[in-house]
Amino acid sequence: MKSSAMRDLMALTERPEVISLAGGWPDTSTFPPDSYAALMSSVASRSCARALQYGPTEGLAVVKRCVADVMRREGMEIDVDEVLVTTGGQQVIDLVCKTLLDPGDVVVCEAPTYPGAVPTFCAYEADVVQVTMDRDGMRTGELEATLEELERAGRRPKFIYTVPTFHNPAGVTMSLERRRELVRIASERELLVLEDNPYGLLRYEGSPLPTLRSLDDEFVIYASTFSKILSPGVRLGWAVAPGPVLEKMNIGKQSSDLCSSSISQYFVSAYFDSGPWEDYVRSLIEIYRRRRDVMLDALADQFPREAEWTHPQGGLFIWATLPDYIDTTDLLARALDEQVAFVPGRAAFLDGRGGSSMRLNFSGVGEDQIREGVQRLGEVVREQVALYGTLTGEHAVLTPAQLEVASREAEAEAHAQPEREPEQLGNVLRLPRKRA
Amino acid sequence: MKSSAMRDLMALTERPEVISLAGGWPDTSTFPPDSYAALMSSVASRSCARALQYGPTEGLAVVKRCVADVMRREGMEIDVDEVLVTTGGQQVIDLVCKTLLDPGDVVVCEAPTYPGAVPTFCAYEADVVQVTMDRDGMRTGELEATLEELERAGRRPKFIYTVPTFHNPAGVTMSLERRRELVRIASERELLVLEDNPYGLLRYEGSPLPTLRSLDDEFVIYASTFSKILSPGVRLGWAVAPGPVLEKMNIGKQSSDLCSSSISQYFVSAYFDSGPWEDYVRSLIEIYRRRRDVMLDALADQFPREAEWTHPQGGLFIWATLPDYIDTTDLLARALDEQVAFVPGRAAFLDGRGGSSMRLNFSGVGEDQIREGVQRLGEVVREQVALYGTLTGEHAVLTPAQLEVASREAEAEAHAQPEREPEQLGNVLRLPRKRA
Repeated sequence: MKSSAMRDLMALTERPEVISLAGGWPDTSTFPPDSYAALMSSVASRSCARALQYGPTEGLAVVKRCVADVMRREGMEIDVDEVLVTTGGQQVIDLVCKTLLDPGDVVVCEAPTYPGAVPTFCAYEADVVQVTMDRDGMRTGELEATLEELERAGRRPKFIYTVPTFHNPAGVTMSLERRRELVRIASERELLVLEDNPYGLLRYEGSPLPTLRSLDDEFVIYASTFSKILSPGVRLGWAVAPGPVLEKMNIGKQSSDLCSSSISQYFVSAYFDSGPWEDYVRSLIEIYRRRRDVMLDALADQFPREAEWTHPQGGLFIWATLPDYIDTTDLLARALDEQVAFVPGRAAFLDGRGGSSMRLNFSGVGEDQIREGVQRLGEVVREQVALYGTLTGEHAVLTPAQLEVASREAEAEAHAQPEREPEQLGNVLRLPRKRA
Repeated sequence: MKSSAMRDLMALTERPEVISLAGGWPDTSTFPPDSYAALMSSVASRSCARALQYGPTEGLAVVKRCVADVMRREGMEIDVDEVLVTTGGQQVIDLVCKTLLDPGDVVVCEAPTYPGAVPTFCAYEADVVQVTMDRDGMRTGELEATLEELERAGRRPKFIYTVPTFHNPAGVTMSLERRRELVRIASERELLVLEDNPYGLLRYEGSPLPTLRSLDDEFVIYASTFSKILSPGVRLGWAVAPGPVLEKMNIGKQSSDLCSSSISQYFVSAYFDSGPWEDYVRSLIEIYRRRRDVMLDALADQFPREAEWTHPQGGLFIWATLPDYIDTTDLLARALDEQVAFVPGRAAFLDGRGGSSMRLNFSGVGEDQIREGVQRLGEVVREQVALYGTLTGEHAVLTPAQLEVASREAEAEAHAQPEREPEQLGNVLRLPRKRA
């Protein structure tokens, strides 16, 4: 399960009949083919031989300047010498593990954590300790208690991994107070923090919060990517790290793939040269905000009362939690029969938790497909709820029609109450739903 | 030294004043910019959104068909389901290590071995055992003795790594007899062999030999790349492996970078669709054959009598060995003062051997630059020879002018005697030069 969840959904790439709410896919269909051709034509005339050639391991200088631009837009001033261009943001996680971990070393991360980090932690045989979250992100009180407990056992984490903004998969954002707490804890204990921030610029409401890197540049390794503001197909991300760590990551990258695609790097550079890159991000924000709203409405309409889900202010994901008796790994097989996919919650844990949760993506498919996808999903969920009721008698057996009436009531209720996040994220500690 | 040699030379990428005989760079300057623009334009009109999107971890089906084409040209029929598309051939080495190795595990490879594999073996803390080579490639007798010795110590290698054809850095090719021996040994002992074959299609003389993979598809993991037949800037290579190994490598790749650049993959696919890809390879062969000959002539002209070097039938590299008292790592600093670079031999060993050898590349720069680069190199080498003579009195002190006369004589001799390979590769066991 751990390693195959993300890969299986990658394999769905070429099956157009499946409505995939699984991937972390941006919508690349709005990028104009004419611009693609024109940018490539400009690379051809100016840098053809270099675009076809190896480049330096740390990335082309022209791309590092694009990175500095993007980070300035998120309130960070950096030196291009602090940048390592990587093969997607995923490679930052891989290189940090490759550089810092020996088998059995402790890594601390959120519960749930990014499903794509799980196989990486496993590949390097990390001993992963997951700290629960609520609507304000990782619980720093629990983090501190966890670190103290580890210290008593003579153990010291090699790093703390976090997605503070528009969390993947949880859809929540770490509060400013928690951010300050986290960098204080890291600084006091001289612990490295890997801040993974692929979605920071995709905010649909509310005000930006400072990144951890802007609060501390001594212990924070910063990771981001061009995947969500331009294209994941370029497979270009980056790390900004303290000197000695960056140096080791550079050596690690050299041994992993020598350098990242020059073709991709010159494309990105030409794109940033061609005009204000923020315009395209703004157009994506408009599209994704509507899709998020469509998905939230569809969930209210289609999911049974027993379900709960988060209300993300940005990013790409909603985290939904079903009644405990539903196993979303089993449910996925049933959902795939109905041509709809999601990431089962267990993929975001290393200890078997998350069994009744799921990650839903709202960026990768259009509004009609989101409605259709959530409806299909709602049907299989309600089917399970009804089946459970039949078998145990513990729940009233509602027909889909009856459930739809109930869901509509819930929707009306939800519209009156925009904040739909549970007190705590499902499968950690279940509290009564506010709207129940 | 181990980790930084290849990276330092990568960093030379953007220093045009240095004549680099260091990298394994093909010449990308002959690829027509118009074709680049036209291919990208065809991708834009047919597959823009997909080229900008994530793809499946194992690679796009259209690229796997290109892989099958290339392998058919080298005498291998494969099923596209056996292919994993990777971020350059380098990633195959990384993934095989990631998949198979625990710290301390034994890997067997050639002495010297590909300098880019050295940091990868180190990153996974392999215990590397290097088997010496002669002009017929890895000595399979010594391999068998080594395996027996390991077995007596209760140790079993996880795999044998080899570059049988146009070896990097040694420039020699494994004979057919040795190839049969190697797969026999592997098969009898049920040992995996990683056959790294980036240069097989770049043959300048002689007849092709079967790949190890054509002799055995049960124990051979096959690695190759588009880098040397099209472009290293696409960062696309591939592995063909037995099912259970391929499955694990796929999981490893997912955790490393999710998938390789879709931009690059669609470019490669469009290129293979656009006409016979072998034409461009044939044009490269003509260019590289001339450059090899220019380098061989320049070495005969510029290097002192005490030096020896290999005579490659294909590929990109010549391996030169200087008198024992010259340390090529020190020499590199002196050579860089003269704006010429090479890979010092020690980068190809894990045990400090190779100190008086160097890898010279003849594909990356033009004929005039090869002449100029080897001349500069010859000067610093002769300077060292003269200095040694002055200090020890063991060698006659020759002026550069006197040395040039001697070199010209050697060249005349060399022309009369085309086979210039030493009996054994330098720094392993030194035999008298044939022409001495």
